[in-house]
Order: sequence, then structure tokens, then C-alpha cells
Amino acid sequence: MLLVQKYGGTSVGDAARIQNVARRCIAARAAGHDVVVVVSAMAGETNRLLKLVSDITPRPNEREQDVVVATGEQVSIGLLALAIQSQKGRATSFLGHQVRIVTDSAHAKARIQSIDAERIFQALRKKEIAVVAGFQGADAQGNVTTLGRGGSDTTAVALAAALKADACEIYTDVDGVYTTDPNVCPAAKKLDRISYEEMLELASLGAKVLQIRSVEFAMKYQVPLWVKSSFSDDPGTLVCEEDTAMEDVVVSGIAYDKNEAKLAIRGLRDVPGVAARIFGALADKNIVVDLIVQNASQKGRTDLTFTVAKGDLDKAKAVVKGLARAVKATAVETDREIAKVSIVGVGMRNHSGVAAKMFQVLSEEGINIQMISTSEIRVSCVIDPKYTELAVRALHTAFGLD
Amino acid sequence: MLLVQKYGGTSVGDAARIQNVARRCIAARAAGHDVVVVVSAMAGETNRLLKLVSDITPRPNEREQDVVVATGEQVSIGLLALAIQSQKGRATSFLGHQVRIVTDSAHAKARIQSIDAERIFQALRKKEIAVVAGFQGADAQGNVTTLGRGGSDTTAVALAAALKADACEIYTDVDGVYTTDPNVCPAAKKLDRISYEEMLELASLGAKVLQIRSVEFAMKYQVPLWVKSSFSDDPGTLVCEEDTAMEDVVVSGIAYDKNEAKLAIRGLRDVPGVAARIFGALADKNIVVDLIVQNASQKGRTDLTFTVAKGDLDKAKAVVKGLARAVKATAVETDREIAKVSIVGVGMRNHSGVAAKMFQVLSEEGINIQMISTSEIRVSCVIDPKYTELAVRALHTAFGLD
Repeated sequence: MLLVQKYGGTSVGDAARIQNVARRCIAARAAGHDVVVVVSAMAGETNRLLKLVSDITPRPNEREQDVVVATGEQVSIGLLALAIQSQKGRATSFLGHQVRIVTDSAHAKARIQSIDAERIFQALRKKEIAVVAGFQGADAQGNVTTLGRGGSDTTAVALAAALKADACEIYTDVDGVYTTDPNVCPAAKKLDRISYEEMLELASLGAKVLQIRSVEFAMKYQVPLWVKSSFSDDPGTLVCEEDTAMEDVVVSGIAYDKNEAKLAIRGLRDVPGVAARIFGALADKNIVVDLIVQNASQKGRTDLTFTVAKGDLDKAKAVVKGLARAVKATAVETDREIAKVSIVGVGMRNHSGVAAKMFQVLSEEGINIQMISTSEIRVSCVIDPKYTELAVRALHTAFGLD
Repeated sequence: MLLVQKYGGTSVGDAARIQNVARRCIAARAAGHDVVVVVSAMAGETNRLLKLVSDITPRPNEREQDVVVATGEQVSIGLLALAIQSQKGRATSFLGHQVRIVTDSAHAKARIQSIDAERIFQALRKKEIAVVAGFQGADAQGNVTTLGRGGSDTTAVALAAALKADACEIYTDVDGVYTTDPNVCPAAKKLDRISYEEMLELASLGAKVLQIRSVEFAMKYQVPLWVKSSFSDDPGTLVCEEDTAMEDVVVSGIAYDKNEAKLAIRGLRDVPGVAARIFGALADKNIVVDLIVQNASQKGRTDLTFTVAKGDLDKAKAVVKGLARAVKATAVETDREIAKVSIVGVGMRNHSGVAAKMFQVLSEEGINIQMISTSEIRVSCVIDPKYTELAVRALHTAFGLD
């Protein structure tokens, strides 16, 4: 088998842990597999580097910031290759540009466009473990780029797809994907399997196990994705294609997210093109909008409410205020104090009344719902953040996940 | 003018110092010059990275060690580019491989083979300050290489040569080249000018101002080299071609080196090929031999004494012991407790009795000479290290440098 393993920052946090990862890589190689390992920066290192940058300037040029932060993974691959060699294994490290992980030029959030697998296959043919830097690539001009936080997962899955690997194993400090955050809900249970689509909803909804783009990539290229702990031998959770057994479960997981903020535009003229104009302007500034709710129009006017990442709120507000006169809005209001709670499950497609049951559960706990959004396999509610944990536990019980 | 400036680790030791360097670069640009800046890793960073490596393994593979230590300069160039931008200057950073600093594959002590100046000229044409990582390059296969300690000086001079720069300015924490170490001899004076050859002898003899290979490069390509302080506006010392005024000075400087050790091979058979065999074997192990003294043969046998860096002594001893039987040596002795004191000056070529005067001065101070070595412009004596400072001061006075 050709395995791509990815180890996060906690797994390579110090010399002893790096040796532990080396042992696992060597064991996989000894079991007869071809092994490609992707590593993140040592825990805390990316923040240390970002601090050096912010000590210089509050608004760094992203090209230069990428040059600085990409060094975190570079240190990790060198150290892991050395650790493997010190345990009599064979290893060679590769930087993003050395295996031609070509990205676009969107520094700090670049997207992978192509990978040249040949250099890695060369190493594998020499029976070496290929140790590849996560999170980084190079654009067509050779500038260093980074993929954004959690980008090492994406590197691993993209490599697995490019190499047509048999599996991609994401090692982290938890032993799999849970029905919800065990810190919030002690009754949370580990899932043995979950579909790509469900994982995608859970990842995008704030479950921090896997980076969302890596799940998209895995789904697109049908890469079987394992979430495992580097500190145990638990088989972990397999993220894979949906099957009929999965469809019997109505709700697979409960997610929550406290990192969004709400923006409401009051008294908008309800004519075609207004929403396009507003969300087009936000997209131009690279602001990602999550939930969008528009109330039914009254007297040709309507309210438009949407959520963005808390960090983008000020930028989003400036964009909207700049347009307020043009779209004849009467007011722009913001609220940083919101939380989003979501239920996810492919089984929802075949079951009715799931959303109604969620609203009922929240209502019974006295929790007011501020916004609602649904997809085929998800229902999300925006609520007062102080009720987040209560809501998660109540939903976990109500949907039979305890 | 096209200027290449190089700033060492102390000059970029923290955010405030990096801003200070940025100010100097911008001032040079504002004065109408094209500016290329080479920077080292922040003070202490290379040692921190080497510690991470040694925590993993005592005998690291040098390819992987290079991957790790090259990150120090990468962080520096990103931060300096950001600092220049934060002061409204224009800057772009470049890694070794991005400006095609191609080296051989001798990891940890690679030699520069070529530089592609075009990418830098592109930046200069856009009125940008080009910030280039010192110390690093890439071999023909794209592996990261480093040039060895002090290699950033070499990067700067090699760039100055490749770009045909008008001057190369090496900024450090001293304001120039002194007649000797001011810490040892308070009467030491700053030199306004010194010839490449003299600087080469001083650098190789332990004066830590400039890395020796950078001086070789400057001499070979006739790059005018300035040694300046990044903390003052002193004009510094110009290292340049010898002229007639320089020849009037018999001794320009006194150097000392306590980092060597002595190895004596006793009772060698004095037949052709013995020395070649010994020093060939040492060269094969990359051990650099400095002084070599062979006594006149007695009864077909001779003693051979040489010095190596203290760090290489054990390796050298093992090599020599391995050969001892073959060359019929009777004993191999080592001594770590030695110091080398040298006088340097192009004027020596035209003056006789300089060496004799040196021996006389040492003798008057009661200092025994263990080994002697001379070149056209240098006389070196190996002595007991406890007399080093005394010897330096006495020679400084005797040769009229006070």
C-alpha cells in the first residue's frame, strides 16, 4: 500500500514526540508500505513566527509573511528526516517547491493547482520515507506561498490524490471524529465511519479535527481519509463515501461555532441586484460569508442578515457602510455575540421533521433562535453564545447520540 | 551606484534593530543607489536551530541539517522586507534558490558556483530593495545547501561580483578592521584601508571580522569591500587592492587564534610519499590542516608536527593513528593547549629582518616559540596560550602600531 500520513504540530511538538512519529513511520515502512509523511510546524512555532511579524508591522505584506511562516514546516521536515535516520530508517525531506506543489498566488490562503509526484516516487523507489512540508507551496513564479491555517491536512490529501495513495491518515491529538465536542458533552462518542459530506459540514461548522479544504479534496478525488491519534493505536475514524448503513442514522454529529459575527442591513430596497451587489463587494475583499437570511419584503423594503468570521467583521462593516447609500439601507447593525449550533447527517435526506425537532429541543430549553439556515444534510441555528453548551448537550441526547 | 550591503545576526537581533537596518537601506536607496541587502539569521537563531538538530541526533545528516538551519536567514529576509515596507520603502525578499545561488553539494560548507543576477535586476528596475538570504543556496538538484558559518559575507561578496556592484558593505558590530583585537590590546587602532591579501591573512588567522572565503571572492573579482558598523556612521575600513602607500607599512596587524590544536608524529620514516599519504588521508576526511612543520631528518627518521582546528583534533588523531604503522611512526602526540600569534603586512615583502624582530620581541618577554610558519606577508608563531595577550601587546608596540 502507498500511505500518506500527516502529523500535526502537537505530534511533532518536541524531540521525543518527533522520535515517536519517526517510529510510526518506520513501522509502516517495515509493514511493507510505501510511506509519505506530511508534517506541520512544531506546536507554537507558527504563532511564534507570526509574533515576530506582528512585532515588525501590524499589516504585513502577505508574500513576506509567507516567507517567514513557511519556515516552521521546513524545520519540522528536517528534524523528522533526521529522527527517522537516527532510528536506522531512510528518509529525505522535501519542501513545497521541491516537489512542485504549485499553488495560485493568493498568499496566506493559496490553493494547490498541481503536484509533481515524480520526485516523491523517486524517493519511494529508493525505499526512502518521503517527508514533505505541509502548509506550503510555490506559485508559478517561484514565490513561497502558504495554504492558510490547517493547510497541512490539505497538503496531505492533495499528495494522496496526486500519488493515488491507498489511504491518507491524519494523525492528531484526538483519536477520531466524535459526535460532538467531548469537552462540551461528556456523552460524545467516537464515530467509526463518517461520509465526506457529513465531515465537510462538521469541519466547516467548527469541528476542528480536519481542515475543510482537505475534506473537499478527499471527496473530489475519493481519497479514503483516516483520522487517528499519534498517541494511541486506536483505529480512528474513516472518512469515506456514503453507504446505505450511514443513511439509517438521521443525525451523525452536532457542531458549534463561536467564531462568527452577525451583520444586519435594515430597510433595503427590495429590487433585483441588491444582494448581488453587496455580496459581490464582500467577495472582492475576500470576505467569506456563511449564513445569509433575508426576511420577506414589506412595503418594498427588506432586512438582510448574514454572518462572517469575527475577524472579518470590521472589514465587512466598512464594505457594507460604503454601499448603504447606494442600496438605500436605513441602518447597518453588527453583533459579535452569537454562536451557531448545527446538526449534521446524511440520513436527513430521507427523514422529515428533523429541523422541527431541533427547534423544539431548543425551545424546550428556553433558547431563542436568531437565524436559521439549512442544507440537505444540515440544520444550523444562530443563538445567544451563553446557551451553546446547553444546546449541544440537549441536541446530542434528543437525537440519540449519547 | 549599485551597493550590496550585508548585515550580520547582531544587526538584525530584534524588531528594533531590524527597523534600524531598514532605515539604513532606505537611506541608501533615497541617496539614489540601487540597493541589495544580504542578511544573516537573527543573533542566536542558528545556534537554536542546531540545538534542535542535536536534540534529535548527535550525528546529523548534513543535507537535513541544512534544511533546518537555512530557515534562520529565511525568517530574517521576510522580516527585513516587512520592516522596509513598514517605513514606506519597497522591498522583495529572495531565498537562495529563488535567485539561483547554485552551489556544489557539499552540505554545511557548500561553495557558490553561479548566481543568476536577472531576478535581482528585475527587482532593482522596479525601484525595489532586494533582500537576499545569506548563507544559503541550492545545488544543481535543488537541495538546500548552506555555506558554513559566516557564509552570509560570502553571499554578499558573490552577489556583488555577479551584479558588478560598485561596493560591498559588510555591516557588523565593530566599526572596521583593527590592527589587533581591542579587547586584548587597548592601543589597537582602526585601519582606514587594508589590502585583500592582508585581510585574507588576518581573517584566516582568527580575526573574526570577515569570513575568509568572502575576502577570497572579493580579491578574485576585485570587489571593493567595506567593513562598517550598523550602529554608527563611521566610514569603516576599506578592503581593496594593494597600493604603494600600503607597502610602506611593514606590519599592518597582529592576529591570534586559540582555536587550534597541535598533533606531532614522531620517528617517521623520512622517505618520499609519507607526508602526501598523511595529509591526503586528512583531506579525505575534510580536515583542514593549518601550520605544518617537519624537522630535519636524523638517521632517516623525522618528526612531523601540524595544527588543526580543536574540533577536528580527535578525528585527525584517529586518521593519523590508523596510518602510524604503515608510515612506521614511533608515537603520535597531541596538544590542545596552544595559541598562534601572527604578524601580517604587505610591506614585509620589501623589508628584511621582520621575522627576526618578532622572535626577538617574544624572547624578551620570555615566551617560548613551539612552531614557526611564514608566508610572503605573514609570520606565525605557536606559543603557550597563557602568553597570547602579552605577545599581542608586545608585538603591537614593537611594530609601531600603538
